[in-house]
Amino acid sequence: MGALEDLRDRLGEIHDLSRAASLLAWDERTMMPSAGAEARAETLGTLARVRHEMFTDDEIGSLIDRARSESDDAPAGESIDADLLRIVGRDWEKARRVPSELRAEMARSSSVAENAWLEAKGTSDFAMLLPHLEHNVELTRRYADCYEGFPGFDQTYDALLDEYEPEMTTAQIQGVLADLREGLVPLVREATENDAPTAADLFRGDFPADPQRRLIAQMISELPFPDGSWRIDSTEHPFAISIGMGDVRLTTRYDETNLGMALFSAMHEAGHGLYESGVDPELRRTPLSKPRSLGLHESQSRLWENWVARSRPYLERLLPRLRENFPGPFDGTEAPELERAANQVERSLIRIEADEVTYNLHILIRFELELEVFEGGLPLTDLPEAWDARYRDYLGLDVPDDAHGVLQDVHWAAGAFGYFPTYSLGNVIAGQLWDAAGNDLGDLPSRIGEGDLASLGEWLRDRVHRHGRRLSPAQILERAGCAELSVEPLLEHLRERVALAIRA
Amino acid sequence: MGALEDLRDRLGEIHDLSRAASLLAWDERTMMPSAGAEARAETLGTLARVRHEMFTDDEIGSLIDRARSESDDAPAGESIDADLLRIVGRDWEKARRVPSELRAEMARSSSVAENAWLEAKGTSDFAMLLPHLEHNVELTRRYADCYEGFPGFDQTYDALLDEYEPEMTTAQIQGVLADLREGLVPLVREATENDAPTAADLFRGDFPADPQRRLIAQMISELPFPDGSWRIDSTEHPFAISIGMGDVRLTTRYDETNLGMALFSAMHEAGHGLYESGVDPELRRTPLSKPRSLGLHESQSRLWENWVARSRPYLERLLPRLRENFPGPFDGTEAPELERAANQVERSLIRIEADEVTYNLHILIRFELELEVFEGGLPLTDLPEAWDARYRDYLGLDVPDDAHGVLQDVHWAAGAFGYFPTYSLGNVIAGQLWDAAGNDLGDLPSRIGEGDLASLGEWLRDRVHRHGRRLSPAQILERAGCAELSVEPLLEHLRERVALAIRA
Repeated sequence: MGALEDLRDRLGEIHDLSRAASLLAWDERTMMPSAGAEARAETLGTLARVRHEMFTDDEIGSLIDRARSESDDAPAGESIDADLLRIVGRDWEKARRVPSELRAEMARSSSVAENAWLEAKGTSDFAMLLPHLEHNVELTRRYADCYEGFPGFDQTYDALLDEYEPEMTTAQIQGVLADLREGLVPLVREATENDAPTAADLFRGDFPADPQRRLIAQMISELPFPDGSWRIDSTEHPFAISIGMGDVRLTTRYDETNLGMALFSAMHEAGHGLYESGVDPELRRTPLSKPRSLGLHESQSRLWENWVARSRPYLERLLPRLRENFPGPFDGTEAPELERAANQVERSLIRIEADEVTYNLHILIRFELELEVFEGGLPLTDLPEAWDARYRDYLGLDVPDDAHGVLQDVHWAAGAFGYFPTYSLGNVIAGQLWDAAGNDLGDLPSRIGEGDLASLGEWLRDRVHRHGRRLSPAQILERAGCAELSVEPLLEHLRERVALAIRA
Repeated sequence: MGALEDLRDRLGEIHDLSRAASLLAWDERTMMPSAGAEARAETLGTLARVRHEMFTDDEIGSLIDRARSESDDAPAGESIDADLLRIVGRDWEKARRVPSELRAEMARSSSVAENAWLEAKGTSDFAMLLPHLEHNVELTRRYADCYEGFPGFDQTYDALLDEYEPEMTTAQIQGVLADLREGLVPLVREATENDAPTAADLFRGDFPADPQRRLIAQMISELPFPDGSWRIDSTEHPFAISIGMGDVRLTTRYDETNLGMALFSAMHEAGHGLYESGVDPELRRTPLSKPRSLGLHESQSRLWENWVARSRPYLERLLPRLRENFPGPFDGTEAPELERAANQVERSLIRIEADEVTYNLHILIRFELELEVFEGGLPLTDLPEAWDARYRDYLGLDVPDDAHGVLQDVHWAAGAFGYFPTYSLGNVIAGQLWDAAGNDLGDLPSRIGEGDLASLGEWLRDRVHRHGRRLSPAQILERAGCAELSVEPLLEHLRERVALAIRA
């Protein structure tokens, strides 16, 4: 057996173990009886450990070296083998840098801190979380230190960001998000200080779960998924996960007082799911078969949630089905009204409840604060104050307590520093891809109005999904006709939303 | 770290991988989107291979040796460590005997043969299956040859039986099943040649799935499962599986024309589930935490299905709930009538449709035939004829075609030789345990009539479940007050069933 073949076999086995872990994670949040939690944690721990040991083995490194000499060194996207060796080589170098003990300690610390966070949030007591946060930050610094001299890493935050958005630098994301802030702060002020009448919230009311389930199943079955390749279940916190080619699991939450919850979160998760299910089958069972960046991933969920599902033509087609599943509330509703209800703009304190226009300000605040913690010397004790100041500044809101402020998200307690900016990056990329798809396909809203979701799906599959990890987000955007990262398409889209909200 | 601790760690990891495989197997049959099948097969294959490699490693053998010198050699049931080393030592010796290539070839051959079986059964064409069956038998002989000189194995069939019923010899099971045949053949003749009027089949009719689901959920929730430790879903072929401590998954099938299907199969699977969930928590994450023999396992499912759920007092308590969930059909029904409906005796050609009384004759036939194949020189070409002759002999039935004869079960196509007798062994053991529990607890039917299922559950947990693999079935029976294996309690129970059927 050649080195490349041997390497592919081993990587295939490691990939299979992560498929198993994905199913265990999905099951834990959708199906598992509560008493199974302890055994599940052990099982997931073992799968992670065995996978890590198999991957960081010296033999993998030597197979990569030998395989390189068997393979050509074609530019990205030209040879699967060359792409595989490039990506796996970098993964292996990265994985080897961090001692197992540190990884284990980070996992333990996150788990303890997440529990402390639940309690701290419940009593709005930041001091309770503080020591855990300090430990997380210290461990994260030690983690970043492991990457001293790693190619492309110039500062601590580079190593953190790379975990979620590989090969994007802190400087790059800072630039993009500064542009976004510049456009967004005044836009949000305009939208929300205008005393515009609020549209009737048609998605609030009495919506039994069963017809919600039927409606959502209809909506998802019209999306361009391959036959028999998905399912949707309910969870507390909606997510999407791929268990393997042909097996994508979506979840949503059925809130019987708020139809918008299930409807838009299902479309969001379906966007993630379409990405996973659109990867080129030739990449199956290799590390190339997973999408490359969280930003790109989020761009897909946002496209379907915001650009498609909140658009007039989509909602217009949805209306008869809303009436059919929920006799009464939508009887006299017309499409423009429904569109306004789906696109209200309102400043709020809680990120996960934010609308499309204000959402990115929540992200900017978190990004800027974590950057200050890791690069600017902001002591964690000052975090609540810094948080509140920025909410006043960007959103004009007073934070009444830490539960509605710095304690609202789990990410930092979970040790996930560097994750937040990928949410906004996703929105930025979605705006660019939407415009590029429109350029290629012609009038997208008309297509959607005709029920043609397949064209957009096909375009995204061809330009984005199928590449898996072969191309970087920058390479994908360039080939899709988007040139440089730019916040302008997103801002233009949000300006239209604001205009709509103000008109209402 | 001592050798025993190291060994326990490694066995814990291997155990975790089998937990993961259990979840994947459950999901495949209950939840998985159809397009996920190929990836699932790969993932399960990898988990099996990695687990096997980890377990058959030389280092495990040397740790067992070293741990033995650290531990005492107490008799079974006295020291967990000593029991662990005894069981694992035997498992390791067994696993090392069979070359990986042979295992892989057996898995491949079974998979191919199962597909051929589906087609052969569909067209009732034994010749289509024959070459695959021949290959399976040849591989199985090579498998048995790997155990030449293995302690306790005197003949080929010993090695096959040991896979499902460890440490039981062919001679022992032959003796038990010969006793059973002797009592059963005349009993079945008496029951079915008597031209007794058939009781009204109250379980046939129009039973929508939703109230079936509600009823079954109520029934299972009254069984002595720990809180939040089980769930029940629907499948084509009902089964039960444990994913880890505190996580038992039951399945059943909702046939809208036959309420008995879901009702009795759910109780059957719940019996299996109670066994798995009753293992001593101290054995968790060790190879001792799984039940030891299929016979014992089947005894638990049969006890709850046949001795409990088909009993007059259980059905009497069920009656109001049947009326509540299915208004109409049970309005005028009285308990004795329901009991007769649940206990009809009728000779039939298909094992999985057989009643409690005739069921074991189906098993006897299969056991005797596979024994003749492996030990008596029966050529596989003669199998259909031999099958049909025995059905005439034992059941007085003419087999119209092989689909209703030798082709009805998947087991032989799946390469599972030595499996069948454990079904009957389970019925035999159930009879003995029922009597022993009655001796200890007093009048079991009265307890059941009072809704007390916990006492029987507790007794079984204490006498059977908690031991996991620490004790052999013989040791468990002895300690439960059952002395030698004996078919008499089962036959006595079946005689009562026959008396009931004839009275009807």
